Amino acid sequence: MTQQRYKALIAYDGTTFKGFQRQVGVPTIQGEIERVVSEIARMPVTITGSGRTDAGVHATGQVISFDLDWRHGQHDLQRAINANLPATIVICDVRQVSAEFHPRFDARRRTYEYSIYNAETRQPLYRLSSWYVRKPLDIEKMSEAARKLVGEHDFATFGQPPQGMNSVRHVYTAEWRRQNQFLVFRITANAFLYRMVRSIVGTLKAVGDGTWQPEQFVAALSGAERRFAGQTAPPHGLVLTAVEYDLDF
Amino acid sequence: MTQQRYKALIAYDGTTFKGFQRQVGVPTIQGEIERVVSEIARMPVTITGSGRTDAGVHATGQVISFDLDWRHGQHDLQRAINANLPATIVICDVRQVSAEFHPRFDARRRTYEYSIYNAETRQPLYRLSSWYVRKPLDIEKMSEAARKLVGEHDFATFGQPPQGMNSVRHVYTAEWRRQNQFLVFRITANAFLYRMVRSIVGTLKAVGDGTWQPEQFVAALSGAERRFAGQTAPPHGLVLTAVEYDLDF
Repeated sequence: MTQQRYKALIAYDGTTFKGFQRQVGVPTIQGEIERVVSEIARMPVTITGSGRTDAGVHATGQVISFDLDWRHGQHDLQRAINANLPATIVICDVRQVSAEFHPRFDARRRTYEYSIYNAETRQPLYRLSSWYVRKPLDIEKMSEAARKLVGEHDFATFGQPPQGMNSVRHVYTAEWRRQNQFLVFRITANAFLYRMVRSIVGTLKAVGDGTWQPEQFVAALSGAERRFAGQTAPPHGLVLTAVEYDLDF
Repeated sequence: MTQQRYKALIAYDGTTFKGFQRQVGVPTIQGEIERVVSEIARMPVTITGSGRTDAGVHATGQVISFDLDWRHGQHDLQRAINANLPATIVICDVRQVSAEFHPRFDARRRTYEYSIYNAETRQPLYRLSSWYVRKPLDIEKMSEAARKLVGEHDFATFGQPPQGMNSVRHVYTAEWRRQNQFLVFRITANAFLYRMVRSIVGTLKAVGDGTWQPEQFVAALSGAERRFAGQTAPPHGLVLTAVEYDLDF
């Protein structure tokens, strides 16, 4: 038996899952994919992800890896897995990589998008993929505050690092754009703290609705303590859109 | 007791409903709204819609009417109804109109949009609001064929009229546009036959993937018989986006 390592790009609708990470007795992204790949392998296969996403969070660009002894083409493997996954998860691409490849440790940049639906009335069709905010939001002020996130900072205000690790992260871009009645936030960083994007978005929303001044946002960031953050935005507006690596291994 | 007629603009995610029209023992849009308005009225209230939508079909611009004795403002009425509707239905606007107003008979133009997600792999996040078509579609050919729909024609190929009525309808616009990996069809007509939009879209898809030539589409339209149509596109890609009236009554 010759096992090879595979890297896969996956997308999912997080609505019906209790997050990415495997848990006994509840539906998770990792659990579903492991079930399907293990059936194909006829032995237990463990999936490694670039990072966990919370219950309700979606992905169009999550990256996973697994080891498998597969004698056919990569395209056949993708088809075999997709044929057995539920409609809520899909493998967009799968390719063989070096056995050294690790989706979390080797990731150089992650990108998330967060959508706010900002209108007089809620919109049923968008309720599972955006945060409905009724109060009109000032995208200029939110953009001004978001620019302060760019660079290397201690982001302790907006999230918790894994135990024993520091909370310094490097944000490369943090921008809001308007698309009809949506305000979409796109943020790219080397890595994120737990709940960091949702905490940033919830706090920027307070800037947008006038509860906070942009200067207060800056002070909260500089404070580098969790208690300075505003509210945490709900999970269902969040999508992990890309994880980038130096090499394709 | 003084009843007044109200016209309401409503939106819904049709995924979990068995269509618009009330049916005993199953969830429908009409049934849900009648339940809520009747509770507010403390008597049975009947809702009239501009037209039925099938199970799985969505709306952002459906129009309904109902009669109600309501002593407070229109905004309070909207809030009272929305507070009791499920997250899948919303009243976007409600206003008092003439007692003569009828949402179906008085409607002058209806607009539908149909979304096809055309890509190498299916996208879980869009699975309930678009038709996934893997084969690359030629939007130029689909647009060329769609232009032939404009004008007054007998649309018997694409749908069934109500019993005893004719199948001549006037299409004002019928256009495809590309939005990233989506192909979106927008069609406006004075009225539509049963399943007409889905039958047109399914047949235009055959033009787009090369199964049909645009001339065959024209021949099918001219044939004016149901058997000349291609497949019927699935319901979940369809959204009723607008119903227009001459006057606001």
